[in-house]
This record gives sequence, structure tokens and C-alpha cells, in this order.
Amino acid sequence: MKRSLVLALCLALTTPLAVPQEAAPLRGYSADSSRAERDWEIKFRALPDPAAMRGYMQRLSARPHHVGSPYDRDNAEWLKARFQEWGLDARIETFDVLFPTPKERLLELIEPAHFTAKLEEPSLAEDPTSSQKDEQLPTYNAYSIDGDVTAPLVYVNYGVPDDYETLDRRGISVKGAIVIARYGGSWRGIKPKVAAEHGAVGCLIYSDPGDDGYHSGEVFPAGPYRPKDGVQRGSVMDMPIYPGDPLTPGVGATKDAKRLPLDQAPTLTKIPVMPISYADAQPLLAALQGPVAPPAWRGALPITYRLGPGPAKVHLKLKFNWDLKPIYDVVTRIPGAVYPDEWIIRGNHHDAWVNGAEDPISGAIALMEEARGLAALLKQGWKPKRTIVLCLWDGEEPGLLGSTEWAETHAEELRRKAAVYINSDSNGRGFLFMEGSHTLEKFINGVARDVEDPETKLTVWKRRQFAAESSPQDGAEARTRPDLRIGALGSGSDYTAFLDHLGVASLNLGFGGEDGGGIYHSIYDDFYWYTHFSDTTFVYGRALAQTCGTAVMRLADADLLPFDFDNFTDTMRRYVADVKRLAEEKRGQIVERNRQIDEGMFAALADPREKSVLPTKEPAPPFLNFAPLDNGIAALERTAGAFDKALTHADENGGAALARAALKDVNDRLVTLERVLLLGDGLPNRAWFKHQIYAPGLYTGYGVKTLPGARESIEQKQWKQADEQIARVGKVFENAGEAIQGITSALEQAVR
Amino acid sequence: MKRSLVLALCLALTTPLAVPQEAAPLRGYSADSSRAERDWEIKFRALPDPAAMRGYMQRLSARPHHVGSPYDRDNAEWLKARFQEWGLDARIETFDVLFPTPKERLLELIEPAHFTAKLEEPSLAEDPTSSQKDEQLPTYNAYSIDGDVTAPLVYVNYGVPDDYETLDRRGISVKGAIVIARYGGSWRGIKPKVAAEHGAVGCLIYSDPGDDGYHSGEVFPAGPYRPKDGVQRGSVMDMPIYPGDPLTPGVGATKDAKRLPLDQAPTLTKIPVMPISYADAQPLLAALQGPVAPPAWRGALPITYRLGPGPAKVHLKLKFNWDLKPIYDVVTRIPGAVYPDEWIIRGNHHDAWVNGAEDPISGAIALMEEARGLAALLKQGWKPKRTIVLCLWDGEEPGLLGSTEWAETHAEELRRKAAVYINSDSNGRGFLFMEGSHTLEKFINGVARDVEDPETKLTVWKRRQFAAESSPQDGAEARTRPDLRIGALGSGSDYTAFLDHLGVASLNLGFGGEDGGGIYHSIYDDFYWYTHFSDTTFVYGRALAQTCGTAVMRLADADLLPFDFDNFTDTMRRYVADVKRLAEEKRGQIVERNRQIDEGMFAALADPREKSVLPTKEPAPPFLNFAPLDNGIAALERTAGAFDKALTHADENGGAALARAALKDVNDRLVTLERVLLLGDGLPNRAWFKHQIYAPGLYTGYGVKTLPGARESIEQKQWKQADEQIARVGKVFENAGEAIQGITSALEQAVR
Repeated sequence: MKRSLVLALCLALTTPLAVPQEAAPLRGYSADSSRAERDWEIKFRALPDPAAMRGYMQRLSARPHHVGSPYDRDNAEWLKARFQEWGLDARIETFDVLFPTPKERLLELIEPAHFTAKLEEPSLAEDPTSSQKDEQLPTYNAYSIDGDVTAPLVYVNYGVPDDYETLDRRGISVKGAIVIARYGGSWRGIKPKVAAEHGAVGCLIYSDPGDDGYHSGEVFPAGPYRPKDGVQRGSVMDMPIYPGDPLTPGVGATKDAKRLPLDQAPTLTKIPVMPISYADAQPLLAALQGPVAPPAWRGALPITYRLGPGPAKVHLKLKFNWDLKPIYDVVTRIPGAVYPDEWIIRGNHHDAWVNGAEDPISGAIALMEEARGLAALLKQGWKPKRTIVLCLWDGEEPGLLGSTEWAETHAEELRRKAAVYINSDSNGRGFLFMEGSHTLEKFINGVARDVEDPETKLTVWKRRQFAAESSPQDGAEARTRPDLRIGALGSGSDYTAFLDHLGVASLNLGFGGEDGGGIYHSIYDDFYWYTHFSDTTFVYGRALAQTCGTAVMRLADADLLPFDFDNFTDTMRRYVADVKRLAEEKRGQIVERNRQIDEGMFAALADPREKSVLPTKEPAPPFLNFAPLDNGIAALERTAGAFDKALTHADENGGAALARAALKDVNDRLVTLERVLLLGDGLPNRAWFKHQIYAPGLYTGYGVKTLPGARESIEQKQWKQADEQIARVGKVFENAGEAIQGITSALEQAVR
Repeated sequence: MKRSLVLALCLALTTPLAVPQEAAPLRGYSADSSRAERDWEIKFRALPDPAAMRGYMQRLSARPHHVGSPYDRDNAEWLKARFQEWGLDARIETFDVLFPTPKERLLELIEPAHFTAKLEEPSLAEDPTSSQKDEQLPTYNAYSIDGDVTAPLVYVNYGVPDDYETLDRRGISVKGAIVIARYGGSWRGIKPKVAAEHGAVGCLIYSDPGDDGYHSGEVFPAGPYRPKDGVQRGSVMDMPIYPGDPLTPGVGATKDAKRLPLDQAPTLTKIPVMPISYADAQPLLAALQGPVAPPAWRGALPITYRLGPGPAKVHLKLKFNWDLKPIYDVVTRIPGAVYPDEWIIRGNHHDAWVNGAEDPISGAIALMEEARGLAALLKQGWKPKRTIVLCLWDGEEPGLLGSTEWAETHAEELRRKAAVYINSDSNGRGFLFMEGSHTLEKFINGVARDVEDPETKLTVWKRRQFAAESSPQDGAEARTRPDLRIGALGSGSDYTAFLDHLGVASLNLGFGGEDGGGIYHSIYDDFYWYTHFSDTTFVYGRALAQTCGTAVMRLADADLLPFDFDNFTDTMRRYVADVKRLAEEKRGQIVERNRQIDEGMFAALADPREKSVLPTKEPAPPFLNFAPLDNGIAALERTAGAFDKALTHADENGGAALARAALKDVNDRLVTLERVLLLGDGLPNRAWFKHQIYAPGLYTGYGVKTLPGARESIEQKQWKQADEQIARVGKVFENAGEAIQGITSALEQAVR
């Protein structure tokens, strides 16, 4: 960043008119190629059309289009036809995946009173697609096992591990019980997993009105929030172990793939689980006795939240069809003119739980307009250096099926060719959210500086910076740091196989923050809702197409792939500091608690009228050896600086050196740099996840854990494993340093 | 504290058996007098009897006993008779005070639908006294003016000044509107005051179930929390200006006192105001449209909280009887044998809003058992050195009437004689709460170390220390500091006139933390509730009697009044640091906000679909001159140290010097030391409040503001006044330093 500014100033002094100050050469471009690129990008950004997007959404969300539905396939065919109509090479690739659908669903309160849950989202007169009952998937959680259980109920808050510690302290066990958890606090699939680990026999997950119902705003159809009968469907597959088809871990779910028997699929739940509305949850929760729930556990229902167990007794019966279903990925290739074997991949899924106007169509229609725009440029003579692959995935909702099976099927080729994967999923109104590989942080900041925010006419970067500045913690840094920090990627969308399994540098982009609502994964996520309450004029749809399209072009056209290792190193330094702090805190907490136990504090503070179980002492954790991480960071710091120097040198004199063909070797090395951050045997107990810097948390599901091996070992108090994992990450840092060193040497050679 | 420990160790080494280590001489006592005192105190603490307290509560709360009711007077006579029966000199002192009661109450929603509020708390079959309808005061706020207003409704959250800033930012004015505020966030009287300042014409205050209703636990009679029709009565007199009878500011409301005409009484509200239940509030709030309330403003009703204004339109009509009513203070004197003109005063009120079992009877019955205990000791030959005055105040609920009028009537004598005032009000179960003058911090810590906690059998001090230790902020300090910090006194009970108007060092004590409930100021605060849900066995009633009684005896019997200036100085140092930090923060916030306005941040972050008003720039505040405070603290540090040294010297050799008659001069000076912290012309715009260290906040009501002149000037951005007030507090510190110096010299002379 500093480099670019200096360069811009120098150019402004020497050739004041030739290159306007604001048009400093793009990173990885010569002065000439940068000018040309900017021209093409400006042309591109004029093309995405809100009216067209509105039309696409209306078509794609006109009927339910979940995996296995007629309209899912119909949409895929229609998408392919559009891409082909625009002159692009679009094909459909199919896989056969396990996708259970409900045969029987029953939930009843049998004690102290009788109540049968409705499990049904009513049609609304205002909302035409809400009445397509025949085609809608019932409310359920996919990959719950079959079950028929009757047991006392226990309220477990969000159902994350900490919540069970709280229950333990109150002497409440869920052994043999059915738990009821509220949505939120973790990805939904964590809830039945943790419940089963604690001995529960069933799990209900409900949407509390305190989270996305009337407490947040008017409910649908008067407002955007969840009505009382609205239910969040969703997958509960144990995706932190591996996503994709449960029967074909690690390989593509092709026709002839070797499949696990159903009863050996490790990512199905261990207990039956079902999502319910707050109308169905209220009688169950109101029937609980036992201790009053802690303040942070209380939602917005007009009841006293109590923990149980019982007297509420619940009967839950679930039966599913366990069929294989076909999925249809729509994959379009624009071949590269110079580096055809370097791929820039852009994806968004097209399948939904029901009509899915927001999730995923609001993102898919941006990708469509990107495709239409790129096709138009091709006709005008634009020739991307690299191959662009545009993907509309199927089967994301059940478990990232379409992207994972595709990535597994083409793993070998992707490992060689995939430079960057850019994902979107849903889109809304407000602020640009950027997450991804930190080697791309500087790059995506540059893109965001060239896209206009439709509401303020500032750049989307500037508006986002204001948002960061207004935060009490990050405000000062956001004002002065040249680049906005981007988030790390956990899971929850189609970048997972690319980043975590294959080591393809990835980005996930979208707008949001002004688009609250409560229709997620319900029948009300439809065209009516979206065009009344979200990005109703599709101007943020256009902004997303402009952002992702510009990113794709700028990556595809660059002389040198614009990765950066300074921001990467800066971020790794923070992660290391985080992990050290975590270890210290964990240690401090255990030592302090042991002392408090010795002093008798817990006994002294307990209210004798409330049942409580005093905590017991734990061994004080050892001090961990962080030297490998420190050495790793030192290696990164050395080599990132050298690379930057070499790049500055190559940039000089209008960056003429950057135009040379000799850069192929450098680009080849850059394509595969992120692969160095993987280790082949993966993370502890989940070998599919190979990335050593980013992973979804084993007990958060979507939420990212950075330096996951080390961090989760510490969180789980596996001290020996923590030391091992720290050493592995240190080694990965050293490997990355070596790779960067290699890139630098190659670059120096290429421009000599 | 350190001194005592050293002393204890020395004694342990030299005379290991004569004085057991745990019985180090009490502060202000010689070794002999300390031994005698401890013996008497142990005798005393054996006397308070839970069964007796239960009987007193049943009697005193048997019927409604608000000001002006037959049973209020009956209780006063009964109390006097009990004290006299025990052989004590009890008298009733009466005053005539303004006490309005409702003649007419009407609240109706007239648009968009019609709804008439019930304004009525139903009787409950389980709860015998809840049916005493003829004697119950209706639900109302005392000292609301009469009014008949019809206007659109606006929801104002807690109705504190910050809330109106939030409304301003959303372009919502309450001018001409009726506001509805929820209880909490400030003392209730602040709500109509701030509403009127912003142009509202009426004010409703409701109890949100998120605060003390079903959200916190089961509602009465199944549990202790507020049922849907429960209403919090209470005074809305503008007590931060002056408490007590509105017609007789600064003087006793005796028969012949000069009275203000009603229409000139400045502490009546400016607009009509009425408290309502959440059952009555829900239809009103549900009828509001306009922006959705910010997340922190939302309560636990099953509605979307919106701000208005309107379309809800409300009609509020209130008419009151504006009569004078008699109040009956029951005042009992135990004359001092050595220093009859040094008074230790102990008080708790006896009037209630309705039956008032918790508030105030749970505190009053502790005082009764203290009196019975002291009377028993007197019969056994105990002779307190100082005069003890035991007070059961009337008229606390409407506005601290009984204590204020008594203190104003006897102001001249109290200024000379009152050494300490010890207050209690209500009592519950759990942890000892200690607030008061910091010259008494060390003293009351010592008392708390000698009282047993009924649940844990630890001392009440130790249990409280554990609670402090478990707090994330204060934990480390609480573990190592010899004394627990005591809170500063704001207002809300009968210590106010003593401390804030007359400068009598004061303490306020009580138990709580395990006694949640929602019957405050309702008909359900009665014997049934208290004996089912609070201190049901009255063991904390006994602990309160033991704590307060021990404190009274230890003060009354001491050779030298046990004030301490080290902890006081330590606390003042913290307050000065607080005020400096506040000024810095305030300055920083304004400068930062101005910059954000210049940068365009607020415009950039605004959602164009939501109405908002951008903030405007303010002049940057000047830097304030804190030198007077620093100099004042330096003076305190010097002199507090010297006093401590002199006391250590006097303590030596078993503290024989402390027994000398020459100590009278020192004691005289100690009695009046707190008076030095007053300034005759009081605080800005409220001359009645003369204490320069402690005051209730002008805009918090109960909540304390320490160094109030300086702090509130900064909060209100009155920079010139802030500099003046800082100088005044600095002067007060210097005066206190001089006074301590004088005490030290007198002590040195006395023990030479």
C-alpha cells in the first residue's frame, strides 16, 4: 500500500498528465496493462442491471427448488441456457448424494398437559408463493437420524458446551432427556452433537422471538421478521468433520463412487433433531419447572424461562426417506488467453430450502449479471489472461454438496490450477463484508475502493471504513491502517472445500447490515419478502456484481497474481498473539478457580435455597512452548519484506518488467502458495480439514477458529496436543516463508 | 487496619495468653474498655429473636399504613408502647405535611382503538391482606400535579436525558406528547421531570416484565415476581432539589411553620404522571408505530417495541386531594453516661405505601429488636458513654418526610451533637450491603467482621468479601485490601437530611442479593409474600439487628469516636481520578464526534430508509484546572497520616491514654468533622444539598454523584461552573485537612 502511494506520487511528479494520480498502477500490473484493465473494468461495472436481476430472482424463486425437486433441476437447465445464450460455455455436472426428506414428523407434549406441535408454516394471502404447499419441504433438519423418543424436557439455552457447564453447576443432567435449544450462539448442527455427547436422546431447536422474531421488529408480512409459525430449516450434518455427501468423504459423489453404508456415515446426527417455531416452542417451554434460567439464557417469550428437567415430557418421532438424489452444478468456463491453466473461480449456490429468494438467489443473480457482463466484454475484444470458472452450485443447503463433490472430483486439477475462489451466498443492503485469505486482503481492499455504494455514493470501501471506525474497539486502527482488515473464513458456504480441503486462496463477499429479517430457511424467504424488505431496488445486487466481477477480472488479467504477504504476516502475528493470550487466560482461569475452590468461595456464594454443585479442582495447565510460532512469524516477516522489495523493484519504470513472459514461473508459484498452509494429515480428528490457519470450529460450526489445531487443543485443555499443534503451525509458517522466498527469487530472476 | 494487625501481632508476642490474637483492641478503645465492650456486644448479639421479628411484622403489616391512614398512627402508638414497655423513653413527634391522595384517575387509549386501563391490583385468595381494598391507596404517583391531557404517545425507554438524545437523533420530539417510560434506569421522579423539560404534557411509568416481572422468575403468588396487574406506586416529588414537605423547604413542618402556597411548591411535578402495570401498558405500547425501538430499549412484552409518536393517542386525567396530613415519628432516647451531647442516631421508617412487609417493616423490626436488646443490656448495667437516639420515621415513602422534618426542626442541636446516623430501610436475604461516609468505612468493616452470616456461618464480612472477589473488576483488590469498599450514599432513604443537609456522618445497611422479587410498592408487599419468598425465617432480620446494634453500641461506648481518615483519603483520591477521567472522556468524545461530523461519518452510516437527524458540532471543551483537587488531596494525605500516627501512639501500652477525660475535646472535634465537608450555599441550583462529596444526582435521583458539583457541571458541559466547583471541592478538602490536623493536635495534647 505504501509502495503504491510512493509510486503514485513519483508518477505524478514526472508525468503529471499521462497518469492521473488516482490511477496508480494496479498491483501486479504494468502501467500500460493497468490502464487497459481499468478501462475494461469501468466498462464492466456499467453493465449489471438491477431490472435484469429482479427478473432472474422472480424466475428462480418462483417455486420451491431444494435438492431433488423438479424446479431445482429446472433452474439448473434455465441457468445453463442463459449462460449459453450469452455465448458462454456452460455445462451441468451432476452428482448423486444422500439427501434425506421427512416421511413422518411428530412432536407432542404429553405431560403435564397435552399439546401437539403444528410443525407447519401457514400460507399468507399477500404472499403468492407461500401457498405452494405441494412442493415445499416440510420443516425439518436434514441428516437428523430417524428416532422415536419420549423423555423429559431440558432447556439448554444455545446448547453449546459452556451451557452444559452451567447446567452441571446447577446439578441438571440431560442424560436420557430431550433438550430444547434456541437457534443462535453456534451453527445449528453443533446443538444435537453436543446434546448427544451429554447423553440426551433427542433435540429440538426453536427460533426465539428475541433473536429474529417480534423482539427485533414487525413480523412478516407486516415487517421482515419471523412470524410465530416460521421455522428455520437447515442441515445438522456434522460438517466440522467433513462437509459434502456423508457417504463419499474425500471423493466425488459420482455415479460409481464407493459409498459408505448409511449406518456408517459419521456425519449423521447421533440423536433425532427437529426445528420448531416459537408458537410450537412456547407451550413446551412454559411447561418446564426447575430453576429459573440464568438471565443470559432468557429469550423474548412472555414466560419465565426455566431449565427443567420436566415435568414437561415430550414425544418426538421422526422418519426420513434416505434416498440418493441428483444435484446439478452449472459450471461455465471462460478460457484464459495467456495462462489457461491458472483458474479464477467464482461461485454461488442456486439450491434453496424452499423458494430462497434471499438465500441464495440474491447472490446467484449477481453472479449471473457478472457472467452477462463478462460475456459482453468478450464480444468487445476483452481477453482474460487466466481461465475464469463460474459456478452455480447445487446442494449447498444440505451440506455444501455441489461445491464439495465438485472440488473432490476435480481435486487433482484444482490443486494445480486453482489460483483463487470467490464466493457469495446471500446479499442484502448496507455494508460490504469481506472475509477470506489474508494473502488477498490488500487485493480486495483495492477492489472495494473502485465500487460505488448505491446509498451514499461513497465507495463501498469508504462506507465500510466508517463502519469500522465507529466501532469502539477497532475505530482507531480502522482510521489509520491503509487496508481494512478482512475476516477469516469459518464455514457455512461453498468456499469450504476450496479453502480448507484444497488450499485455494478464497474470498467471501456480500452486502448487509441494513437488511434485518427473520425468514431465513422458511417458506417466507421469497420474492414477496425480498422485494418488500431487503434490497428492493436491487442496487446492492448490482454493487455485488460490480465488486465480484471487478475482482474476477483483476485477478484474471493481472501480469502477476496480486497476492500480498505483508498483510498476511501482520494477521498471522495477531493470531499468534491471540493463541498465546488464550493459553494464558485459560491457565489463569484454572489457577484462579482452584484457589477460589480452596478458599471456599463457591460454597460461600451459593444460595442454599437453590440447588448447586460446587466445581472441583483441575490440574494447573503446563506452560506451552510458543517458540515454533515465534520462529515461524520471524520467517514470514523476513521473506514478506523481501518479496515486497522485489515487487517494488519490478514496479519501477511503469512496471515494464511485469509484462514479461518470464513471469509464468512466478505466477505458477503464486497459484499454489496457499497450498503450503495445508498439512496432508489435516487437523486433529478431522483429516479432511487440512488448512492450518483457518477452520470452522469443531464446536462453533460456522464460526472460524484461526490456527485451529493449536487453538482448539487449548480450548479443550489437551495440553500435549497443543504443544504438537503449535509446532505444526510453526512449521507451516516456516514452509510459507520458504515458499515466499522462492517466489521472490523467481521474481528477481524474471525481472533481471 | 495495618496498625491493628501490627498491634495484634505485638500483643500476641508479648502477652500471648492475656489478649487472644483475635481480640485486638477495638479502634478508639483502650485494651480494658475494648474487652468490656466485646463482652457487652456478645451479650447483645444473642438477644435479637427471629420469632419476635416475625410477630412484629405480622402486626405492623396487618393493614395498610400509609401516611394519613388510621393504621399508620396506630402503628406509631403501638411502637411507642413497645419501646416504653421495654423501659425506654419513647415519644411521638408529629408534623403536618402535604400529602396528596387520588380523587380521580383515568387512563384510556382513544386511538387507534379504545382501551381503558384497569389501574387496579386484584385481590388474591392465597394472600389475606391483598383484599383490604377499603384501606389501600390506589395506584398513583404522589406529588404528580392534577391534569387532564389527551395527546399522542411516545415511548421513551427509561426516560433519562440520554434517551431523549437518542430520540432526537431519530427526529422524534415529545413536545405536546404523553410519554410512556419504563421503571428503572433512574429514580422514578426523574422521568416526569425530564419529560416536562422536553415539552411532554403527561407521563406514564410502567413496570416492564423484563425488569421485575415474569422475565426474572415466576410471578406472585406462584413466585416472588410482579404479576401482570402489579403496580409500583411511589413519589415523584423533585427530591434532588430538596426532600421533605414541599411546602416547608429547609424548616420543620410544625403546626405553625410558614408554608409556601401550593402553586409555588417547586418540588411538585410539572406534568401529570401515573404508574401502570404491564397489563395496562401492553395495549398502549402495542398501538405505537414509528421506528422500532433500539435493542437496549426493548423489554420483555411479546410485542415489537416502537417509538411512536402515535398513532396511539392517550387520555390521562388525574385529580388529587391536596390536604395536609399528620405524620408520627417515634423517637426514643437512651441518654449517654459520659458524653450525653454526642448522639448516635439509628433510624428506619415505619410508613408504607400499602402493607409494606418488606418496605419498610423488614428493616423496622430489626431496629425494634435492637431496642429491646439495648434495653435488656441497660437493665444488666450497661452504660453507653454517648446518647443513643432510635427513630422510627413516618412519611418516608412520599418524600423522606418524617426524617427530613425532624432533622430540619432540630437542625441546630443536631449540628452540635449528632456524631453518626445509621439507617436501614428494607431487608432481605444474602449479602451485607454497606454504604456511607468513608470516614466510617474502616469502622463498619470491623463491625461486619463480628457478625455471623446465617446461611454460611462465615462472618457477614467474609461472605461479602467473597462476593466482591468474584466480581471481574474488583476481584483482585477485594482479595488484598484490608477493608471492603463501601458505597457512597445517593438518596432514597432517611439518611438524606442527616448526611446531605446537616453533614452528619452516615451509614446505610441491609442484606440482599438472594431476595429477588417484584412486589415493590404494590399491595403484594405483605406478610404473605415476605414469609413465602424473602427472609422467611427472619435470620437475616436477626443479622441486621446484630450488625446495626453492634455498630450503635461500638460507637456509643468508644473512648474515642472511631473515625478514620486513611480510607477516606484513599476514596477521595479515587473520586478525583474519576472526575478527571470524566472530563477527559467528555472532551475526547466531543472532539471525536466533531471530527466524525467533519468526515461525514454519520451521513455515511445512516440507513436512508430510516429517518435520522445528523448530530451537529459542539465547541470543544476547555481543559479544566484540577490543581485545587490535587492540592486538596495532598492536604488530606499529609494530615490523615499524622492522625494515624497520633492514634497509634495513643494506642500503645494497651491504649491507657485513650481512657483519659481529656479526650472530650478530641471527640467534640470528631463529632463535627463531617460538617467541614459542607458548604453553606450548597450545590448549584439546590442549596439544600450542602455536602460537597456526596449527593443524589440531579438526573439520577437515587444514584449517587460523588464530588457532585464538579461532576454534574462536567456532565452538563457547564465548563465555567465546573472550574468553580472544582475549586470549591479543593477548598473543602483543604478545610478537612485542617480539621484533621486540629484533631491530631488535640489528640496529641490529650495523650501527652
